Amino acid sequence: MDISVQELAVLVGGRVAESPGDRRFKSARIAGAASISDAGDGDVTFFGNQKYLTALKTSRATCALVPDDFQEEIAAIPIYVANPTVAFSRVLAHFAPPPAVVVPGVHPSAIIGECVQLGPDVSIQPYAVIEAGAVIGEGSFIGAGVYIGRQVKLGANCKIYPNATILERCILGNRVVVHSGTVIGGDGFGFELVKGRHVKIPQTGIVQIEDDVEIGANAAIDRARFGRTRIGEGTKIDNLVQIAHNVTIGKHVILVAQVGISGSSRVGDYATLAGQVGVVGHIEIGEYAVVGAQGGVSKSVPPRQFVWGTPACPMKEFKVRNAHAVRLPGLVGRVKQLEKLVEKLSRQLGESPDADAE
Amino acid sequence: MDISVQELAVLVGGRVAESPGDRRFKSARIAGAASISDAGDGDVTFFGNQKYLTALKTSRATCALVPDDFQEEIAAIPIYVANPTVAFSRVLAHFAPPPAVVVPGVHPSAIIGECVQLGPDVSIQPYAVIEAGAVIGEGSFIGAGVYIGRQVKLGANCKIYPNATILERCILGNRVVVHSGTVIGGDGFGFELVKGRHVKIPQTGIVQIEDDVEIGANAAIDRARFGRTRIGEGTKIDNLVQIAHNVTIGKHVILVAQVGISGSSRVGDYATLAGQVGVVGHIEIGEYAVVGAQGGVSKSVPPRQFVWGTPACPMKEFKVRNAHAVRLPGLVGRVKQLEKLVEKLSRQLGESPDADAE
Amino acid sequence: MDISVQELAVLVGGRVAESPGDRRFKSARIAGAASISDAGDGDVTFFGNQKYLTALKTSRATCALVPDDFQEEIAAIPIYVANPTVAFSRVLAHFAPPPAVVVPGVHPSAIIGECVQLGPDVSIQPYAVIEAGAVIGEGSFIGAGVYIGRQVKLGANCKIYPNATILERCILGNRVVVHSGTVIGGDGFGFELVKGRHVKIPQTGIVQIEDDVEIGANAAIDRARFGRTRIGEGTKIDNLVQIAHNVTIGKHVILVAQVGISGSSRVGDYATLAGQVGVVGHIEIGEYAVVGAQGGVSKSVPPRQFVWGTPACPMKEFKVRNAHAVRLPGLVGRVKQLEKLVEKLSRQLGESPDADAE
Repeated sequence: MDISVQELAVLVGGRVAESPGDRRFKSARIAGAASISDAGDGDVTFFGNQKYLTALKTSRATCALVPDDFQEEIAAIPIYVANPTVAFSRVLAHFAPPPAVVVPGVHPSAIIGECVQLGPDVSIQPYAVIEAGAVIGEGSFIGAGVYIGRQVKLGANCKIYPNATILERCILGNRVVVHSGTVIGGDGFGFELVKGRHVKIPQTGIVQIEDDVEIGANAAIDRARFGRTRIGEGTKIDNLVQIAHNVTIGKHVILVAQVGISGSSRVGDYATLAGQVGVVGHIEIGEYAVVGAQGGVSKSVPPRQFVWGTPACPMKEFKVRNAHAVRLPGLVGRVKQLEKLVEKLSRQLGESPDADAE
Repeated sequence: MDISVQELAVLVGGRVAESPGDRRFKSARIAGAASISDAGDGDVTFFGNQKYLTALKTSRATCALVPDDFQEEIAAIPIYVANPTVAFSRVLAHFAPPPAVVVPGVHPSAIIGECVQLGPDVSIQPYAVIEAGAVIGEGSFIGAGVYIGRQVKLGANCKIYPNATILERCILGNRVVVHSGTVIGGDGFGFELVKGRHVKIPQTGIVQIEDDVEIGANAAIDRARFGRTRIGEGTKIDNLVQIAHNVTIGKHVILVAQVGISGSSRVGDYATLAGQVGVVGHIEIGEYAVVGAQGGVSKSVPPRQFVWGTPACPMKEFKVRNAHAVRLPGLVGRVKQLEKLVEKLSRQLGESPDADAE
Repeated sequence: MDISVQELAVLVGGRVAESPGDRRFKSARIAGAASISDAGDGDVTFFGNQKYLTALKTSRATCALVPDDFQEEIAAIPIYVANPTVAFSRVLAHFAPPPAVVVPGVHPSAIIGECVQLGPDVSIQPYAVIEAGAVIGEGSFIGAGVYIGRQVKLGANCKIYPNATILERCILGNRVVVHSGTVIGGDGFGFELVKGRHVKIPQTGIVQIEDDVEIGANAAIDRARFGRTRIGEGTKIDNLVQIAHNVTIGKHVILVAQVGISGSSRVGDYATLAGQVGVVGHIEIGEYAVVGAQGGVSKSVPPRQFVWGTPACPMKEFKVRNAHAVRLPGLVGRVKQLEKLVEKLSRQLGESPDADAE
C-alpha cells in the first residue's frame, strides 16, 4: 500500500518541488500518514495551521503537504497543494485500514427472546442478549455482549458497539450509533423523602432517540419518569455524558464529553455544550446557544447566546468580569493610594477623615 | 387500556367542566399520560406549577388535570382536582406498563462457580458469571452479563442490572439496586513514586454497601486500600459518580450525577451533593450539609451548612462574592472617578497627588 | 490468621508497653487491620498523622502502632515503632487476603476468532470474545465478558478486568492493567457541519498504550482520527477519565478521576492532573506541571508550573485573586467611604463633585 512521493502528488493533485536531488524526492516511499509531531520516517504529514510551523521544521516526516505559496525550508519533501487539509483527507482515505467486513447473521451464542423481530441483514454478535418482543431493523449491528431489553425498538442500520446496554421499551430511530459501555434507559434519579427515607418514584417512561444520533462510550441516558427522554435527530453526544430523566435534546445538538444535564431541561436545536458543562433541571437552552467548557448553567439561556462560567453568564460579561478579577490586586492598590491621599487632604483642611461623623 | 375523560375524572376523584359540547368532552378517549410539552393527541397532562401556564395554553394534550380554582381558557379538556400532582400519580399508575415478570431460576448459560450459595427465588440471567464462594440472597436478581467476583455477598432482593460488575469480596446488603455498567470494587487509585516510577500500593480492602442503597449507571466505587469503602443505608447515588478508596458515605445521602469524592473523605448522614461536585481527600462533610452543583470542596464542611463555589464557601458568602464580582466593572469605574476627583482637589490645594511623597 | 499483640510486635519490629496488665496486653488477639475510625474489637490500627490524635483517643481498635516517642493515654494497646506507616504496611501484608489464583487456560465459553495468537500461560475467562487476528501476550489475563477487537495486540502480563472493551487494532504494551467497564478505542468525536447536518469524520487511527500503564474503571480513551492516541509508559489513569482522539499523554503522568482531555492536546511526562480537571484541545501541558482539582486549562502550561482555576492560571496568582475576591465586599465598603469623604472635601472647597465637569 506504500506509494512514491510522485504517486502521492498525483493522488492529491499536487506538485513536488523542482529541486536538487529531485529524483530522490520523487521516488521516496510513503507508507503512512500522521500529524506533524507523530510522523516519522516513511510518513506523510500536512501543514494546515500556521502555528505548527516550528513543529513542521523539526518534524521527522518524510513528506509534507504544504500550501501552494509555502516558502519555508523544511526537511520533509514538500508537496504543494491548494488546501493541505483537504488533500490530507484524500491521503487518509488511501492509507485507512479496510473497514471490518460484517457478515449478516445471528451468532449461535446470541440469545434471542420470544417474539423478537429481526430485520433482513441484521448482524447479532456473540453473547448478545435480545429480550422478548424487541425489534431490530434492517441491517442493524448488535455487538458482542450487548443487552437489548424487552420491547426495545431499533430502526434500520443502527450500530450498537460491544458491551452497550439498552433497557426495556426504549426506541431508537435509523442509523443510530451507540458506543461501548453506554447505558440507555436506566432509571431516572427520582426519590421522595418520606419519614427520613428516600422512597423511589417509579420511572415508567422511556428514552426515544431519533435518526442519525451518535452516542459515545460510557454515557448514561436515563428513561423518563413518564413519557420520554428525547434525543433529537442528528444530535451527537460524546463519551461519559449524563442525560437525566425527561430531558429533551433538540436536533443537531453537540454535547461534548462529560456534560451533565439535569432532569426535565431542554436543549434547543444546534446548541453546543462544551466539555464538562453542567445544566440544572427544568430550564431551557435556546437553539444555537453555546455553553463554554465547565460552564454551570443555572437559568435558561436565550437562543444564539454564548455563555460561560459558574453560574453561567453571557460570554462578553464573563470576559469583562474575568479581566477585572485579574486586575483586582491592582484595584486594591489604587484604593489604598486614594485612602492615603484623601486622609492627607482631609488633614490639610483640618478635618477628621471620618465621613460618618458628618 | 385507554379510558374516557369521564372515567379518568372518576379515577382521580375530579370533576369535568360543565360546558357546551359537554358530551364530546366526557367521551373523548385518553390513551397515555405526558408532561405539558410532550403531550399530544390522546394524552392527559397536569398543571402543577404556575410557571407552565403559557405552555399549558399551547399544549396539544387532549385533557389536563388542573386545580379546583383554575379559571384560564385552555384547549385541553380540564379535569378539576384538589391536587393535580397527586392526581397525576394515580394516572401514571393506571397507564404504567406492566412490570417485567421475572421468573426465578438460573439460566443455563449462567456460569456458577464452586461453593456459590444461591438463596431461594433468585434469578440469574443469561451469561451472568458468578465466581466461587459468592452468596446471592433470597429473591435477588442478577442481570444478563453481570460479573460477580469470588466471595461477593449479596443480601436479599437485590437487583443488579445487565452488564454491571461487582468484584471480589465486596458485600452488599438487602434491597440494593445497582444499575448497568457500574463497577463496584475496582482497585483504589494508590501509587507511590519510587525512583521515578509509580509503584502500585496493593488495594486489599473491600466495598461494603448497606441496605436500600441504589447506585446509578456507569458509576465507579473503589475498594479500600484496607478495611472498607462504605456506603450507608438508604443512600442514593446517581449515574457516573466516582467514589474513591476508603471513602465513608453516611446513611440517606444523595449524590447527584458525576460527583467525585476523593480517598478517605467522609460524607455525613442526609448530606446532599449536587451534580458534578468534587471533594478532596481526607475531609469530612457534615450531616445534612449541602454542596451546590459543581462545587469544589477543599476543606471540611460543618453539619447543615450549604456551600458552593470552587473552593467551596458558605452559600451566603458565595452569593455576596458573586454579586460583587458582577458589579466589579462598576466599582472600577467608581475608583477611576475618585482618582480624578482627588487629583483635582489636590491640585486646588497645591499638592502633588502623590501620597508616598508624604 | 489472627495473632497475639506480642507476635504482632515481633512482626513489625516494635515494642509493647511495660505496663500494668501487661499480660493481658501481650496475649490479646488481633484478627484484622483497619483505619483509626473503622477499626473495631480485634483490629490493629496505626497513628501516622498528628491530626488524627483525637480520633485515636476514641478509636475502638484493640491495638495501635504508634511512634517511639508517643506519650498520650489511649484505650488501644500501643505498640511502639520507628515509623507507624511503614510498620502498618507489614501488618497489611500479613492480613491481606490471599490473591485469587488464576489458572492459565482458555475457558470453553470464550470465543476465539481466526488467527488469534495466544501466548503461553494466558488466562481467558468465561464469555470473553477475542476477534480475528488479535495477539495476547504471555501470561496476560482476559476477564469475563471482555471484548477484544480484531488485530488488537496485548503485550505480556496484562490484566484486563471483567466487562472491559478494547476495540480493533489498538496496541497495549506489557503489564498494562485495564479495569472493568473501560472502553479503549471508541471513535473520536469528530464531525463536520455540512448543510446543517453533522457529518462523521472517519476515525481510522488507534490507541497505543505503553508498558506499565494502569487505567481505572469506566474510563474512555478514543482512537485517533489518524495515527495514534498515545498513553506513555508508567502513566496511571483513574476512573471515569475521558481522553479524546489524538491526545498524547507522556510517561509517568497521573490523571485523577473524571479528568477530561480534549482532542490533540499533549500532557508532558510526570505531569499531574487532579480530579475533574478539563483541558481544551490542541494545547500542551508541560512536564512536571500540576493542575489543581476542577481546573479548566484553556492554554498551554509551561513545565513545572502549578495552575488552578477556570480559566486556569498560576497557583500563586489564583490564590491572590481568590483572596481578593474574598475581601471584595470590604473593598466595596472602602470605596463607598472614600466617595463620601471626597464629596465632603469637594463641598468644603466649593466644588461640585463631578470630575467630568473638568
